[in-house]
Amino acid sequence: MEAVDVKAPRTAGDVEALVRLAAGDMASVDRLIAERMQSDVPVIPALAEHLIAAGGKRLRPLLTIAAARALDGGGGNAQKLAAAVEFIHTATLLHDDVVDGSEMRRSKVAAHLIWGAPSSVLVGDFLFARAFELMVETDSLRALHILARASAVISEGEVLQLTRSRDLELEQSVYLEIVRAKTAELFAAAAESGAVSAGAAEAEITAMRAYGLNLGLAFQLVDDALDYGGSSEALGKNAGDDFREGKVTLPLLLAVARTRGREEAFWRRVIVDRNQTDADFRRAREMIVGAGALQATLDLAGDYADAAKDALAVVPDGDWRRALEALADFAVSRST
Amino acid sequence: MEAVDVKAPRTAGDVEALVRLAAGDMASVDRLIAERMQSDVPVIPALAEHLIAAGGKRLRPLLTIAAARALDGGGGNAQKLAAAVEFIHTATLLHDDVVDGSEMRRSKVAAHLIWGAPSSVLVGDFLFARAFELMVETDSLRALHILARASAVISEGEVLQLTRSRDLELEQSVYLEIVRAKTAELFAAAAESGAVSAGAAEAEITAMRAYGLNLGLAFQLVDDALDYGGSSEALGKNAGDDFREGKVTLPLLLAVARTRGREEAFWRRVIVDRNQTDADFRRAREMIVGAGALQATLDLAGDYADAAKDALAVVPDGDWRRALEALADFAVSRST
Repeated sequence: MEAVDVKAPRTAGDVEALVRLAAGDMASVDRLIAERMQSDVPVIPALAEHLIAAGGKRLRPLLTIAAARALDGGGGNAQKLAAAVEFIHTATLLHDDVVDGSEMRRSKVAAHLIWGAPSSVLVGDFLFARAFELMVETDSLRALHILARASAVISEGEVLQLTRSRDLELEQSVYLEIVRAKTAELFAAAAESGAVSAGAAEAEITAMRAYGLNLGLAFQLVDDALDYGGSSEALGKNAGDDFREGKVTLPLLLAVARTRGREEAFWRRVIVDRNQTDADFRRAREMIVGAGALQATLDLAGDYADAAKDALAVVPDGDWRRALEALADFAVSRST
Repeated sequence: MEAVDVKAPRTAGDVEALVRLAAGDMASVDRLIAERMQSDVPVIPALAEHLIAAGGKRLRPLLTIAAARALDGGGGNAQKLAAAVEFIHTATLLHDDVVDGSEMRRSKVAAHLIWGAPSSVLVGDFLFARAFELMVETDSLRALHILARASAVISEGEVLQLTRSRDLELEQSVYLEIVRAKTAELFAAAAESGAVSAGAAEAEITAMRAYGLNLGLAFQLVDDALDYGGSSEALGKNAGDDFREGKVTLPLLLAVARTRGREEAFWRRVIVDRNQTDADFRRAREMIVGAGALQATLDLAGDYADAAKDALAVVPDGDWRRALEALADFAVSRST
């Protein structure tokens, strides 16, 4: 990795090139998703549809498709793995929202507030099982191994986060471990299983895993920064959600560490006791920016995005690889 | 199936013969379970251990072992599948208890009341993922298919039950469909996957699935009857749990249908409104016994147990087959 002071200016990057290249595959993935979430029990497709139709970027299945295509694979098995990855992701979102008591998801009312927490838990289980049924159809024990392991790691990350929630002493290393487990691991497994489905060489499979892992870390850290407005003056529509829920993310942890001497009481009140006003969010944001915590978070995200691009060195040059590079740049550039 | 009036007296049956035969395998299964529920996140093994160490009969993994051994299989892969089956079962119990708000499980305080519902949900997810990791290690895509499909069916059954809870209009056929999905399917998949791991012939695999399915139906119906005291005068320690939770099980549904004309208000109050006293339970039990609903439930369970034994006809005679027959008899005889 280059030293920071000689780093080339980052291009904006985009996700559009990848979306365009993968449009045909993703239409098939969407059909598979719609088909496999069906059930004779009407609540199941209704609840699943609520979340899945709300969209989101479908980044994880896109990664599976792109990894396969970039390595001369693709087709039915990559599409099935991509749909399975989206089901695993959807299942974790359903369970997450119950666990966190979240009220919104993808700009819609969270499913558990409409159908109840019990239905959200059980439909999550259903989608998780359906994910494994799809994987079995690909006949790839290796892809199954990758995604089963990822699923275990994700829940470990979620439990670890839960046990350290509102903990101002959370070490940066543990925070990054949580992000790696609960977010980056599925990005990594999505890309790795796509490469496996393409019958790629070991070095290429390893590279795709590294790309996905670093991309996932970059995305999550930028999400954390965006919750405090990112590097722009204007706040995004969901800004402040983490703060209001008392979530300790990297920008907050760094700011707490750097301002603690004089601001201990403030941080304890707003995060540990969750006794907050809107003015407290503005004050927290000022401290996070002022202490350099926001910039430090974005710098780290930039390092991970660079590592993601570097990992692609062994992947044959072409449209798909360039689209994956642009995605890594986009992960960071969307912070502005 | 013979007509009821010429049926031979049922032997008591027991689970002991099977437990004795399978002792060596089950010691290995227990070791696998203890090993694979470990995690660097301490809450996970603590919560899993609470439930798993409380025991229970380990019937489902026993079925996997017995099906494999009865068909000249067994060994490491059967043990891994058996451990996976127990993990799937444990995961569904953890989620069930959250969904139902149950206070006790296996004579211990339910895990979600100690560690919180969020941890129970997430540790359930972890065990489910670990189950699939174990299955992948057996290299059997067919066993994976069977258990992935069963997992989806179980959650469909749970959701169906949830949407029809406290519904006095629940049709007997729908009730049996719920029992088939949420209970009997895992018995069926446990036995079927054991047979598959033995490399058995198709007819034997089909027979083991039918055995497990019918055994599961018999067990659940007897459990339902035991909640109202079974055919004994003395009540078991957990008697009345279903009634207090307002669960509509077969004995209750049949009694409601048979006494509805004059008892509509009573049933609505105690089940739909869950406005109950201890005296109400005694009154409900008297009606369930008096209307012949308890006996009808046990008769149906007996029919399923007979069907389970009949299914074993294609399995080679021997200690294992006889132990499975005794288990089917035990499923029903424990009602007295």
